[in-house]
Amino acid sequence: MTTKRNIYLQMKSLEAARRILFETFRERLTLPVKTVSVYDAVGRVLATPVSAKLSSPAFHVAAMDGIAVSAAVTFGAAETAPKQLTIGVEAMYVNTGHAMPRGTDAVIMIEHVNELEEGQVEIQAPAYPWQYVRRVGEDIVAGEQLFPRHHRITPYCIGALLAAGVGRVPVKRRPHVILIPTGSELIDWETAADGKMQPGQVIEANTHVLGNLVAANGGTYKRHPNVDDTVAGIRQAVEASVAADCDMILLTGGSSAGSEDYTRSVIEALGRVLVHGVTMMPGKPLLIGEIAGKPVFGMPGYPVSAILAFEQFVGPLLLKVQGLPEQTREQVTVMPARKIASRLGVEEFLRVKLGTVGERIIATPLGRGAGAITTLTEADGIIRIPSQVEGIDAFAPVQAELLRSPEAISQTVVAVGSHDNTLDVLADLVRGAHPVIRFSSSHVGSMGGLMAIRKDACHVAGSHLLDETDGTYNRSYIHKYLPGIPVRQVLSLIHI
Amino acid sequence: MTTKRNIYLQMKSLEAARRILFETFRERLTLPVKTVSVYDAVGRVLATPVSAKLSSPAFHVAAMDGIAVSAAVTFGAAETAPKQLTIGVEAMYVNTGHAMPRGTDAVIMIEHVNELEEGQVEIQAPAYPWQYVRRVGEDIVAGEQLFPRHHRITPYCIGALLAAGVGRVPVKRRPHVILIPTGSELIDWETAADGKMQPGQVIEANTHVLGNLVAANGGTYKRHPNVDDTVAGIRQAVEASVAADCDMILLTGGSSAGSEDYTRSVIEALGRVLVHGVTMMPGKPLLIGEIAGKPVFGMPGYPVSAILAFEQFVGPLLLKVQGLPEQTREQVTVMPARKIASRLGVEEFLRVKLGTVGERIIATPLGRGAGAITTLTEADGIIRIPSQVEGIDAFAPVQAELLRSPEAISQTVVAVGSHDNTLDVLADLVRGAHPVIRFSSSHVGSMGGLMAIRKDACHVAGSHLLDETDGTYNRSYIHKYLPGIPVRQVLSLIHI
Repeated sequence: MTTKRNIYLQMKSLEAARRILFETFRERLTLPVKTVSVYDAVGRVLATPVSAKLSSPAFHVAAMDGIAVSAAVTFGAAETAPKQLTIGVEAMYVNTGHAMPRGTDAVIMIEHVNELEEGQVEIQAPAYPWQYVRRVGEDIVAGEQLFPRHHRITPYCIGALLAAGVGRVPVKRRPHVILIPTGSELIDWETAADGKMQPGQVIEANTHVLGNLVAANGGTYKRHPNVDDTVAGIRQAVEASVAADCDMILLTGGSSAGSEDYTRSVIEALGRVLVHGVTMMPGKPLLIGEIAGKPVFGMPGYPVSAILAFEQFVGPLLLKVQGLPEQTREQVTVMPARKIASRLGVEEFLRVKLGTVGERIIATPLGRGAGAITTLTEADGIIRIPSQVEGIDAFAPVQAELLRSPEAISQTVVAVGSHDNTLDVLADLVRGAHPVIRFSSSHVGSMGGLMAIRKDACHVAGSHLLDETDGTYNRSYIHKYLPGIPVRQVLSLIHI
Repeated sequence: MTTKRNIYLQMKSLEAARRILFETFRERLTLPVKTVSVYDAVGRVLATPVSAKLSSPAFHVAAMDGIAVSAAVTFGAAETAPKQLTIGVEAMYVNTGHAMPRGTDAVIMIEHVNELEEGQVEIQAPAYPWQYVRRVGEDIVAGEQLFPRHHRITPYCIGALLAAGVGRVPVKRRPHVILIPTGSELIDWETAADGKMQPGQVIEANTHVLGNLVAANGGTYKRHPNVDDTVAGIRQAVEASVAADCDMILLTGGSSAGSEDYTRSVIEALGRVLVHGVTMMPGKPLLIGEIAGKPVFGMPGYPVSAILAFEQFVGPLLLKVQGLPEQTREQVTVMPARKIASRLGVEEFLRVKLGTVGERIIATPLGRGAGAITTLTEADGIIRIPSQVEGIDAFAPVQAELLRSPEAISQTVVAVGSHDNTLDVLADLVRGAHPVIRFSSSHVGSMGGLMAIRKDACHVAGSHLLDETDGTYNRSYIHKYLPGIPVRQVLSLIHI
């Protein structure tokens, strides 16, 4: 058993580590240009500006159903002095969208045309030139720039591109990431499902989560098969991946210091380590290296650490190499339901549940363990506690980054108290009956529920509290927030 | 030439039309359940609640590298009274993530362990029970509900599902939409690219735009080949589509009243018309019908009308049948750069450019024609002018729905003045050098630029104005907003 341990001699702040990463790779990572059909272009990023090949409309076209005329012919027409026009000579029937016949420059609405005998119509008012005509290039002029480089194509853009006769566009090839899961303890879920899971084994999930995050940041990904926790095994996988056609490599490591050692020594042997250890929590054990010009990340082993490190480093780098701005989350002011201590020198990413109670958005902290993925799946927001701050006070306003829309949070019923599985059943029933209403329960024990009631920080208290308070307080809230579900049914569910 | 015209005898308000649509179909459209691999599940919607098959951790596991012990054995250890433990008997080496050996319930960090001769270690402090141990089910308990029905799966969720041993999930089949492009004037872009476009022909784009919007709302789509503008042709296409395995049918019609007639008469012949005409602009000529229980939409022909009608009706219905809440856009308070008149009785969707100038977000209206797709691709937001309002005043605060993030809008350089193609070149250069900075130019003529300067509603005035004002006013703004690009270069570009 080795006792040689990695020591984070030069841990970097989040800001410093990000600067090192982006300065090292932003210019060096360039993505080749690819031409794709407009039909498949949504979400792609333009490599060069795109200009219109055709004008839109491509011809003068009628903007109303009626008759096309030369405006000059109609001058002088009035109720008292109607003009007669001959169809096929001075007036041509047109429908909206029809090309204007040669020699015409105005449309008179069919409602204002009196049809006389065969081939003759009468008008009682003049038309002005270009009346009800969409002129060539009114929307798009051939040759003009439609979108600049680095523009990300939306469904709307497809309309403009096709209207301008552009059927193929030059886009950046998506950045390609290889994910290498390392750890002798890793198994696939199928193995676990067969009841063959051995003590100490873990279902490999991180590469699937991070791969999906790569895709959400515009990249493509491939998983390398699970690699045993040996220097030789990791080295072989990394060498093969660096040689492959990819832009970035992510090792999702075991969470032990030993496994970090292996990853670090492989990166040192094949390239160089840029950052080892970031003063963020979760996410601290992140390794950033460079091999043959490609960024190689040793991701932390705990799922929450891996995700938060990804979101601070890998995701933004993926966007930067595509020429896209970093994604920022909407922020709102929230009030923590209780005091939270935090370690000095570390920037903490505290996962919280949010709910609007009265005028305030109340933040209930979730567990802080980096191993608990549910602290992210349950979270509505993240409060970042800066490294020079020792904690945040109960009900003191702080900023939270939102993981769900403000709309969703305003329609969340907040339940605080001891954990009761029937609350999960209730959450499901509510979701079935009212897709817009979310039921969010924080499990902080009965005392936490009592405190929440006292501070007016919840809609529904835990089951024990309902017994003690006769449910009167909560019943009114339930009624307000769960319209359509009989109050009796809600209460009986909570009481089970 | 027929003169029989559709008359919108019973135009519905946006609200009334939406109510009719949702009440008719929300309950009737049900999507079958499909089981998919967790690996492909991101973005899918759970059809039923999902519960954990395994606990996570599945066993007690070490949370630190060190030795696993029974806490009871360590009681009494102190600096003055160290305890010796025999490896393999009272103490077992473990790494983070290892299963706790049988009989142990605490981990002592390796840093606090003195290694003596072979097989012996010494500790100088006791361990408390469960110290540095992640206990079974700390994150997830087997059997507990992970997510309620109608939950949309995120990348984070994949981590929780796999950790809980869930490899396959029951999701709703995506709603499938068939899009039928109608109109004898339609051609594909390839035909236009060959220079074979005839006067009056139009490149078919609406089904591609709307199909991508279907996908953005969680659906799948298939395009029917272009259909000529005849009752027989449309009828045949609709009958075939209704018989096919789809949930919804969209006809993207010609924009003429004649083509609406055909669509309407086909829907009436095969089913019933629910709504014809909505008092919204653009979007008015929308047709909503029902054939064999399926919603059939006759979408307006103009691209902006088709998109806005989609976003008010088709998109929300797609979300509702999946059990998802309607998407709402973030709203901000903006100040229109000029007075805008609007028709009474019609809810107008005014496309605007937005930019932060000083403390204010200035909204510059784009063109109002429904045929101009660039009024949507260029737009940063939409101001909805209610039907009972005749217009909005210059610089009077109004709400705008955002089409881009507030971050993007705060980093937009606003240029107002006459159209100058070199501004497009500048926009591209800026985007190349600074992915986060957008350059947005509104083409309102030199007088509009002058007004914008007077009202402090722009950063950069049009090229003509620069000559007149010597560029002094604008130079400071350019300098502030385009760091890194030499001012001289920017000005010379604008001056070209």
